[in-house]
Amino acid sequence: MIPHIYIDRLRHHINEPVVLKGWLYNKRSSGKLQFLQVRDGTGIVQAVVSRADVGDEIFGRAEKTVQETSIIVTGTVREDKRSPLGVELHASNVEIVHLPTQPFPIAPKEHGTAFLMEQRHLWLRSSKQVAVLRVRAEIVRQIRNYFDERGFVLMDAPIFTPSACEGTTNLFQVDYFGEPAYLTQSGQLYGEAGAMALGRIYTFGPTFRAEKSKTRRHLTEFWMVEPEVAYLELDGDMDLAEDFLVNIVQGVLKTRRDELTILERDLSKLERVQKPFPRIRYEEALEILSKKGKTVPFGEDFGADEETAISEEFDRPVMIHRYPAAIKAFYMKHDPKDPRLALAVDVIAPEGFGEIIGGAQREDDLAVLEQRIAEHKLPREAFEWYLDLRRYGSVPHAGFGLGLERTVQWICGLHHVRETIPFPRMMGKIEP
Amino acid sequence: MIPHIYIDRLRHHINEPVVLKGWLYNKRSSGKLQFLQVRDGTGIVQAVVSRADVGDEIFGRAEKTVQETSIIVTGTVREDKRSPLGVELHASNVEIVHLPTQPFPIAPKEHGTAFLMEQRHLWLRSSKQVAVLRVRAEIVRQIRNYFDERGFVLMDAPIFTPSACEGTTNLFQVDYFGEPAYLTQSGQLYGEAGAMALGRIYTFGPTFRAEKSKTRRHLTEFWMVEPEVAYLELDGDMDLAEDFLVNIVQGVLKTRRDELTILERDLSKLERVQKPFPRIRYEEALEILSKKGKTVPFGEDFGADEETAISEEFDRPVMIHRYPAAIKAFYMKHDPKDPRLALAVDVIAPEGFGEIIGGAQREDDLAVLEQRIAEHKLPREAFEWYLDLRRYGSVPHAGFGLGLERTVQWICGLHHVRETIPFPRMMGKIEP
Repeated sequence: MIPHIYIDRLRHHINEPVVLKGWLYNKRSSGKLQFLQVRDGTGIVQAVVSRADVGDEIFGRAEKTVQETSIIVTGTVREDKRSPLGVELHASNVEIVHLPTQPFPIAPKEHGTAFLMEQRHLWLRSSKQVAVLRVRAEIVRQIRNYFDERGFVLMDAPIFTPSACEGTTNLFQVDYFGEPAYLTQSGQLYGEAGAMALGRIYTFGPTFRAEKSKTRRHLTEFWMVEPEVAYLELDGDMDLAEDFLVNIVQGVLKTRRDELTILERDLSKLERVQKPFPRIRYEEALEILSKKGKTVPFGEDFGADEETAISEEFDRPVMIHRYPAAIKAFYMKHDPKDPRLALAVDVIAPEGFGEIIGGAQREDDLAVLEQRIAEHKLPREAFEWYLDLRRYGSVPHAGFGLGLERTVQWICGLHHVRETIPFPRMMGKIEP
Repeated sequence: MIPHIYIDRLRHHINEPVVLKGWLYNKRSSGKLQFLQVRDGTGIVQAVVSRADVGDEIFGRAEKTVQETSIIVTGTVREDKRSPLGVELHASNVEIVHLPTQPFPIAPKEHGTAFLMEQRHLWLRSSKQVAVLRVRAEIVRQIRNYFDERGFVLMDAPIFTPSACEGTTNLFQVDYFGEPAYLTQSGQLYGEAGAMALGRIYTFGPTFRAEKSKTRRHLTEFWMVEPEVAYLELDGDMDLAEDFLVNIVQGVLKTRRDELTILERDLSKLERVQKPFPRIRYEEALEILSKKGKTVPFGEDFGADEETAISEEFDRPVMIHRYPAAIKAFYMKHDPKDPRLALAVDVIAPEGFGEIIGGAQREDDLAVLEQRIAEHKLPREAFEWYLDLRRYGSVPHAGFGLGLERTVQWICGLHHVRETIPFPRMMGKIEP
């Protein structure tokens, strides 16, 4: 029996007979030859069907095919220097599995994004979307390998949470057997419990924000990876974030170069993501902004414009640390040298892709944390278990969260985050 | 500077000075010696503190420590054949990072499970729970590696879904900006769209069921991995499930033997999980049950009792295929040789651990699927995108879903599924 070979493996079968199982992506023909572009999810290859070789009946079947016809092509793999794959197939048989009776909605031409988003289940088949999804999967694999190989234990944080970390305005509410519950915004608090049990953990799962913003950087449902480490302080946290990002970007560059080329990504920009990343204090960032005519008063957070302006000064990610405590979360430890500041760090991607990491050393003193919870008017009872982590063997600890979709957006060089996830969810967008 | 070494790496530092950073798990002492059991998430090691070696001050600090005191111990690693790790630490210094002012709620003695579940954030620190979580993380790693190495592309399915696959009774409803939405029960339908784009995919994420059952096998929030493959039929689907399970179980046995030993798992039972798995038809399963005095009429589904009775006949997972179509989902293809039957397969774990995999070949004919949706009185409009997959290049395809927590329960040999996930969610249980 002739073996079924996936397109990305064809180069190992030169001059051998193989069976391809896929879909017609495009075709062109002369009277005697047809050139079928066949895709199978691992790549696209040209199958040459010659009337002289296959006879009228098979040639006629090939002629009948339209875009997205599912077909099985038997043939011999031939070396072909002109093809990006280095091979093409000389067909000996073409079988039609299913012939669409109406034209595929997404022709190989330009379509508006609103239309493409409605057809997301079919749009996924286009070579650009396939490339993005393959890069996304590889980024996930690199992230998991990075932590697994270094002794971090994956710890899945719960999705259902009983209360809100920081108010309920951006939370999605669920009917949990008649009681209100909320979808998690972050696994961090649970990750802290895990770090006290397992030393070094990472959570990696979907998180949710009910933000009423329709920008090119917002999704209501997105994946976040959050390492948390016992006995780690801010400097070590920055070392970890830096080493992590360099490994992910360089790893993906190595294994998904073809896909990034399809996406027309400027690879030289990614090659520059090497240690050391610049580390600047919030106050230094204010100076940079001021010099560029974008004065921000101390105590205000940066928006997309400010992040872009700062990132323009560097050729790689920049780490901004020691933000004003007032604009950061209650659980962050304050700088003993300047209590106005939190031991926090944000990592801003280059080229204006914005914040991709937010991290911090956590407050580990019970009394200080109790006071913080009171100051922020948070429901004390809901945090009793979290306070327990400071009652029983509290240790300095730190971690960060990386947004997967923004990282995919940056690495792929995409304008809008909605193309970074198979079925994006946004305000007003929950289908298909 | 003396290096910080994690306990699981100590065996590579024999006769070297090291720093341990962890928590006191237990201790015993004579007047001149103290034996501190120190844990750091990667293991437990004995640190021997001798008054003669360290002097009164340091010895006094060691004496003050109580369970879960966070401590930093400096010392020299010594080979010790009696210890499970093969090493112990001869301490030269003990520093207290944080001394609890009240006793740790979970003493090294027996506690009731209700109490332990309330203290889940602290219970995680016990050596048995650490072992379970390390096995869980390793099962996830093996699952992802299995698919990644074989060319399957990870495809994250959405959590928010606009409509219900099979009625809304078991669905959690969310307020999505004022409109009702539901939390996913399965990524499969989206995975099918992915398989048409990428050839072979797997989804792996949390799924949700609002079942009002409080059994030892039910969680409201659990993780599921679901491969889906274009151009695959039922026999190939069974081959895949079998090869997959053998790889996962044998892989975990290799890398997590120590943890499984802590859990007192009978490893010989897991070693027997090898190919080929018995494959029996639903009707053969009925005969087995009948012989055991548990007659089930054709057309009824199996419950936990029947699954256990069937699994007793085999020393490895058993695959039951071709169930009555009436008790299976609308999207399953019917057996062309007997249309009463669906081309479905369930895999039942041995030793009474129940169903761990449910899979099927999907219906790929547009007209048949349209008719099925009408018969099941499903909202046709919500499935238009799913029907598109049969309109444009439909192909035979199949896949399955594996429940992660039930797999962890089986491999670890746990009575209750609630210990298989860091923060379990059940009916009436959403804290901590």
